Amino acid sequence: MKTRVTIWHEFVHEKSNPDVRKVYPDGIHGHLAKALAAPDLEIRTATLEEPEHGLTKEVVDNTDVMLWWGHAAHDKVADDVVRRVQERVWEGMGILCLHSAHMSKIFKALNGTSGKLHWREAGEKERLWTVDPAHPIAAGLPEHFELPYEEMYGEPFMIAEDAHVVFMSWFEGGEVFRSGFTLKRGNGRMFYFRPGHETYPTYKDPNVLRVLANAIRWAKPVLSAPYPKTHSPEPLEPLSQKDYNPGKAGIIR
Amino acid sequence: MKTRVTIWHEFVHEKSNPDVRKVYPDGIHGHLAKALAAPDLEIRTATLEEPEHGLTKEVVDNTDVMLWWGHAAHDKVADDVVRRVQERVWEGMGILCLHSAHMSKIFKALNGTSGKLHWREAGEKERLWTVDPAHPIAAGLPEHFELPYEEMYGEPFMIAEDAHVVFMSWFEGGEVFRSGFTLKRGNGRMFYFRPGHETYPTYKDPNVLRVLANAIRWAKPVLSAPYPKTHSPEPLEPLSQKDYNPGKAGIIR
Amino acid sequence: MKTRVTIWHEFVHEKSNPDVRKVYPDGIHGHLAKALAAPDLEIRTATLEEPEHGLTKEVVDNTDVMLWWGHAAHDKVADDVVRRVQERVWEGMGILCLHSAHMSKIFKALNGTSGKLHWREAGEKERLWTVDPAHPIAAGLPEHFELPYEEMYGEPFMIAEDAHVVFMSWFEGGEVFRSGFTLKRGNGRMFYFRPGHETYPTYKDPNVLRVLANAIRWAKPVLSAPYPKTHSPEPLEPLSQKDYNPGKAGIIR
Amino acid sequence: MKTRVTIWHEFVHEKSNPDVRKVYPDGIHGHLAKALAAPDLEIRTATLEEPEHGLTKEVVDNTDVMLWWGHAAHDKVADDVVRRVQERVWEGMGILCLHSAHMSKIFKALNGTSGKLHWREAGEKERLWTVDPAHPIAAGLPEHFELPYEEMYGEPFMIAEDAHVVFMSWFEGGEVFRSGFTLKRGNGRMFYFRPGHETYPTYKDPNVLRVLANAIRWAKPVLSAPYPKTHSPEPLEPLSQKDYNPGKAGIIR
Repeated sequence: MKTRVTIWHEFVHEKSNPDVRKVYPDGIHGHLAKALAAPDLEIRTATLEEPEHGLTKEVVDNTDVMLWWGHAAHDKVADDVVRRVQERVWEGMGILCLHSAHMSKIFKALNGTSGKLHWREAGEKERLWTVDPAHPIAAGLPEHFELPYEEMYGEPFMIAEDAHVVFMSWFEGGEVFRSGFTLKRGNGRMFYFRPGHETYPTYKDPNVLRVLANAIRWAKPVLSAPYPKTHSPEPLEPLSQKDYNPGKAGIIR
Repeated sequence: MKTRVTIWHEFVHEKSNPDVRKVYPDGIHGHLAKALAAPDLEIRTATLEEPEHGLTKEVVDNTDVMLWWGHAAHDKVADDVVRRVQERVWEGMGILCLHSAHMSKIFKALNGTSGKLHWREAGEKERLWTVDPAHPIAAGLPEHFELPYEEMYGEPFMIAEDAHVVFMSWFEGGEVFRSGFTLKRGNGRMFYFRPGHETYPTYKDPNVLRVLANAIRWAKPVLSAPYPKTHSPEPLEPLSQKDYNPGKAGIIR
Repeated sequence: MKTRVTIWHEFVHEKSNPDVRKVYPDGIHGHLAKALAAPDLEIRTATLEEPEHGLTKEVVDNTDVMLWWGHAAHDKVADDVVRRVQERVWEGMGILCLHSAHMSKIFKALNGTSGKLHWREAGEKERLWTVDPAHPIAAGLPEHFELPYEEMYGEPFMIAEDAHVVFMSWFEGGEVFRSGFTLKRGNGRMFYFRPGHETYPTYKDPNVLRVLANAIRWAKPVLSAPYPKTHSPEPLEPLSQKDYNPGKAGIIR
Repeated sequence: MKTRVTIWHEFVHEKSNPDVRKVYPDGIHGHLAKALAAPDLEIRTATLEEPEHGLTKEVVDNTDVMLWWGHAAHDKVADDVVRRVQERVWEGMGILCLHSAHMSKIFKALNGTSGKLHWREAGEKERLWTVDPAHPIAAGLPEHFELPYEEMYGEPFMIAEDAHVVFMSWFEGGEVFRSGFTLKRGNGRMFYFRPGHETYPTYKDPNVLRVLANAIRWAKPVLSAPYPKTHSPEPLEPLSQKDYNPGKAGIIR
């Protein structure tokens, strides 16, 4: 059975900035759909401007792994769509939050944090170090790899304490950053990956694409069915047989 | 300087259920304010029915540690008040989520999870085990202590992976539960403590009160001032001096 | 390619206690080798009494997942064999520590803790709760399952903080315990599983066998090759060109 | 009551290398004892060459926080002294592992890992970023601070998964590193701090000294007394009253 992937993209910069359009003529979502295509994946895309942002209940319920890229329009994403996505993660759906999605509603809702960081756009060099080489997301990646031009994100990065760091970045301008980390929320898995500024062809880099391809396979749901409601495994006497004595330690209702 | 504590309580059951009123004539908030009174604390209370639920910007900004008890009216808590409380936690305020607050908006927002669990109300015995005796919240607590009658909460409990467990419960009916755990979100600390069903005098138990007293001291803010915005520590050449070449790896803006 | 499994057993109780021999006539190792046999596994056994405890460099180097059961003879295991096993875990080998292996040298070496706990042997009921139903080790397991007679292990259990708990136990006598947890050390994975006292037929229970079978598949190495030694990715001026000035901040060698 | 601090130093380089002696004429231990002196601390030192390395049972039992610097002579430290120190950590003693102590026996024993990393000695610039500004060890530290000349340590750094990172380093030569992290083992706390190569006056840097001073206060024991041995809190029928039936699920002993 194929893994059902939905690539969600706000798709704003490509329409307002001709330089971004030159890098991604089909949008970041369109580009990634082609670049990540594989026999074991069934990929579709969805964008902000579609009804319910393209994330109807039917689409979300039938997604195994979602990718999320947003930046300029985080506030335009409806709260009930975010809740739908989050609840699906709790059920087991995987989600990859990309680059500036660190300030998206869904990233903050899953981390429980602000997602704040320091940043600078100066087209500087970024070098990513593989901190956990034995993680499935790092499979086939070198010890370190470089992106010649990227936006800088710097620490402190306000993320959940249980962020398991797979990649760390070194920046030409002097900063460090936890650039790739995993979380588990309910039955579902999240992966955040930092690189991917819209004005650079980062998503054409083979190492970056390999990280995303690995992460999709890693984030697939393990479990789909919820547990049935349970009853007491041990025999308990009925409430009414116990003393009612609110003054001491008693049962009241 | 005193630690400024705000005890927030939805204050619903005491008004609708005479049995609860018998246990807590002044409300759970009123009871806790008296029971936790100490020279190093400045305690105030706030309830759902007050304007802005008693949690105005001024109150929240001047709170070091907040206690939160809610159950019947989670949905009636305004989203912007929840956001205000959460942002204050990120700044450094401590928060104690009590009993059925596991389904409150603030608990879910800080965990990033659903807070779901199994439950049963049968007035059964609960025994709490001190799993991390070296934690400041466990100071002075015995290896285990009992509550003769409590509601049961059972695993799996949907909480964040980085929950550090201090207390675990054994229930007469056969379940186990992670009853006391800590989280850190941004600069602030959270502690969840399970016991405290409104129909039993749990908050009169000396061990329970000791846990809460310890947790208030542990949750006090360490840091209050935010960092200033930073600039590149290393010299970077101006953007314009780099090649512009979107077809390869170039700078666009 | 098959997963190469080595089941290590101290094999002491079966020889000294006829009651244990009745339950496991072929030893726990012999029983498990048969009970866990599967087309994707290549299983061998090793025991304390063999030269180098059956864990020669060749055996260890050619093991993907090791199972470890010990109790009466922890101290008789040679330190250099323990080091060999630990270094192989760091390289990527998986290891399952079973029952009283909580006090084995390898368990303590991987946790960095004493492994201490409370215990009682009274043939009481144990109920295991699946705390993380989405973990691969929990695949196919029910929400909870029971063992009618087992030894009791109780909290506090001195294990590493990063123990990720998959199963928790409830005991008839009133205790709770983190009965199944995972660790990662270097490139290798560890799983500890509590049940398995030698006087009860615990390893004949289908749920227990399923946990072990799942854990073997989960613990398989992800990575085998170490990284090459690296050199500075950024150009650095030779040491000799910098000032030597030990009184201030200088370079000395 | 004063916090009893023992600074342990192998004290080898100062005797063999005149350049190191120029930086630390009294040895790193002697220097730190003076530089960290404070009214709330009672500081003593101990070195490798003393009987039992200066870490007799009496010294260790009466230490609240130990500092450990070693490099050239890790193998010369007796195993039973390491075990004594580790067991004292489990009881509640704090320990600070400094710089090349990442390969010491005690560091590896507490992490359960190899402590391996990449390194280069080129007298390059190190910049430390405060990743968790709300941690007590970071109190009073700036967002980032620099050391003009240091040895480089690079990722991947083989440490325990539960390492809570407080500081991260950026190196002039292009690497990143988790330079300051905490662990908890048993009742005791550990802090590792990377900078401190013997040929540079790193321990004269005010920020470095502040980190160590903070860490000593943070690592003080919370608990000293062990728990008493426990008995079953719930009534259990005597073993003999249960059926003995090894063929099914029975009690054997």
